[in-house]
Amino acid sequence: MAERGGRPALAAVDWGTSSFRLWLVDEAGTVLAARRSDEGLARGAAEGFATILERHLGALAAPAGLPALVCGMAGSRQGWREAPYVDTPARLADLAAFAVAAPDALRPVWLMPGIAQRDPARPDVMRGEETQLLGAFGARANGVACLPGTHAKWARMAAGRVVAFATHMTGELYGAIGRSTILSHALEAGTGEPGPAFEAAVGDALADPGGLTAALFGIRAGQLLGQAARTDGAARLSGLLIGTEIAHARAGLAPGETVTLIAAGALGALYRRALAVAGLAVRPVDAETAVRDGLLRAWTAHGRTAEDTRP
Amino acid sequence: MAERGGRPALAAVDWGTSSFRLWLVDEAGTVLAARRSDEGLARGAAEGFATILERHLGALAAPAGLPALVCGMAGSRQGWREAPYVDTPARLADLAAFAVAAPDALRPVWLMPGIAQRDPARPDVMRGEETQLLGAFGARANGVACLPGTHAKWARMAAGRVVAFATHMTGELYGAIGRSTILSHALEAGTGEPGPAFEAAVGDALADPGGLTAALFGIRAGQLLGQAARTDGAARLSGLLIGTEIAHARAGLAPGETVTLIAAGALGALYRRALAVAGLAVRPVDAETAVRDGLLRAWTAHGRTAEDTRP
Repeated sequence: MAERGGRPALAAVDWGTSSFRLWLVDEAGTVLAARRSDEGLARGAAEGFATILERHLGALAAPAGLPALVCGMAGSRQGWREAPYVDTPARLADLAAFAVAAPDALRPVWLMPGIAQRDPARPDVMRGEETQLLGAFGARANGVACLPGTHAKWARMAAGRVVAFATHMTGELYGAIGRSTILSHALEAGTGEPGPAFEAAVGDALADPGGLTAALFGIRAGQLLGQAARTDGAARLSGLLIGTEIAHARAGLAPGETVTLIAAGALGALYRRALAVAGLAVRPVDAETAVRDGLLRAWTAHGRTAEDTRP
Repeated sequence: MAERGGRPALAAVDWGTSSFRLWLVDEAGTVLAARRSDEGLARGAAEGFATILERHLGALAAPAGLPALVCGMAGSRQGWREAPYVDTPARLADLAAFAVAAPDALRPVWLMPGIAQRDPARPDVMRGEETQLLGAFGARANGVACLPGTHAKWARMAAGRVVAFATHMTGELYGAIGRSTILSHALEAGTGEPGPAFEAAVGDALADPGGLTAALFGIRAGQLLGQAARTDGAARLSGLLIGTEIAHARAGLAPGETVTLIAAGALGALYRRALAVAGLAVRPVDAETAVRDGLLRAWTAHGRTAEDTRP
C-alpha cells in the first residue's frame, strides 16, 4: 500500500475464482502500491467487477484513466467478460493482442485470454497461468513449468509458445478426499507438513504411479493396523497426490531437464521437496512476481499491438 | 420371506456399514426365507444389534435357539463385538475358527473375523469379502477375485489361502469427486451407464494408468471446449476410476488368467464391460449367492472346530 514514488503506468490485476490482487506499477515495472482481497468471481458478479476494481484503485489514489490489465478467471464466461481462449501452440508474446475490453469500466480495462488445448485426447484449459508463464519465461519461452494449486498445471514451452499442458486436480482432490471420504478420520491429527511421511509417500507414488486408488485406502488401513502414525495421514495423502502428478509429468521431461517451479509459500515448499525426491532440478520462481511481470510484459506488448485503443 | 419347507439350520447374516441381510437356510444350504433392510452399523449401535437381529428372526418365525453366523462390519471395532483380523496368508476354511461369540445375544450368534495384510508397504484390511471369497472359491481357493464396491477389493488366493489383496477406493472416490469438486457440474446430465463413453474412458485409463489426476480435469475441459457431451461426464468419471483400478490389478495377473468377478446388478455390469475392454476373461459370481454360500461353508467348518459351543 505504501507509495514509493514514481508515476503509475498500469494497474496490474490478477483476478481469480477466490482472490483479487492488484499492483500499481511504473513504466520500469517497479511496484508502487498493492492491494489484495478475497473478492473473487462470485463477489465480482454480485457487486459488479468495475465497482470492486474502482474501490481498490480509489484506496490507492490511482489516477483517473490509468489503464488496468487483468488476468485470471475474471476473463472467463463466468467473469467480467469472456476473453476467448487462444489455442495451443499459443505464442505468449501475442496473448495481449487477444485481450478484450471490459464493459462498463470507468477506465480502460483489458481482460487477458486463457489458453486452450483442443486435442480431443487431452482437452485442457488454463486462465491466469499463461500470464505467469510469460512473466517467468519471457517472450522466448523454452522448457517446462510446474504451477501447483487447486488445479496444478504442467506446461511445455518451445520457441516462445505454449505447445502442450496438463492440468492435475491435485489440490482439489486433496480437499475432496480429505473432507468427503473415510480418510477424513485418518487426517484429523495431521498437518500435511513436508516431513519424512510426505517424502515416503511421494516416493511410493513415483514407484507405482498407477496405484493411487489403492494407496489411498492404505492410509486408513495403515493406521487401523497400527503401522502408521495418525499424525502422518495428511502428509501421506498430500505426498501420494503430488507424487502421482510428478510421476506423470516426469515422463515428458528430457534427461536432466530443469523444471521451473512457479509457486509460493507452503505449497511451493512441498513441491520443492517432492521434486527433489523425484531427482529433478528446479528453478524456483515466485508466483506473485511471475504474474506481475507477466502482466507488465503483456501490457508492453499490448501497447505495440493496440496503440490506437490506449488512452 | 416365503417359507419353502425344510427345517432351518442356520441364520446366515451379512451385516455391513449400511445394510443388513439375513437368510434362513437348511442343512443343504437351501434358502427357506430372507430379510433385508438398511439397518447398518449405526442403527445396530443405536438400537442394539441383538434387538434388530431378533426382530427380523421373529418376523420369519425362526426357532428359538437357531444359531446365527454374521459376517461384515458387525464384527468390527465399531460393531457388535470385534472379531480380530486373521492375518494373510489366511486359510479361508479356518476363518470360522476365529469367529467370536456376540455378547447379549438371545441365541448363539457368531461374528466372522476379517483379514488383515500387515505388509508395511501395503497395509490392508477386509471384512465381509473373505466370506464371499469362501463362498465363491471354496476351501481350496486358487486364483484372483475382483469384488467391486465403495472399497473395491482384488484378492489373490493360492492353496486355499488369501495370500494378498488390495483395496481400491474406486466407489468412494466416484462419490466424493462427483459431489465435492468442480466435476460436479460436469456430471449433472449423466447416468454413468456402461456405453461407449464409459468404455473409451476405461481404455484411456488402461493406456495411461498414472494419468488419473490429469484425466479427471479433462472431463471438465472436454465439455468446456465442446469436445465431450455433457451427458457423458458421469460415465467418463466411472470409466477412468474403474479403468485405473483394473490396470493396476491386471499387472498382477498371469497371462490369460481368469478373473472371478463377485458382484451384482448395475455395478457388476459396469465391471464386466470394463474387464472386457481390458481383455480379461471373467467368471461372474453373484455377490449375494457368494456371501450366503460362504456363511454356510463357514458354519459347517465352525461346527467341526467348535462343536462344544453349539446349541
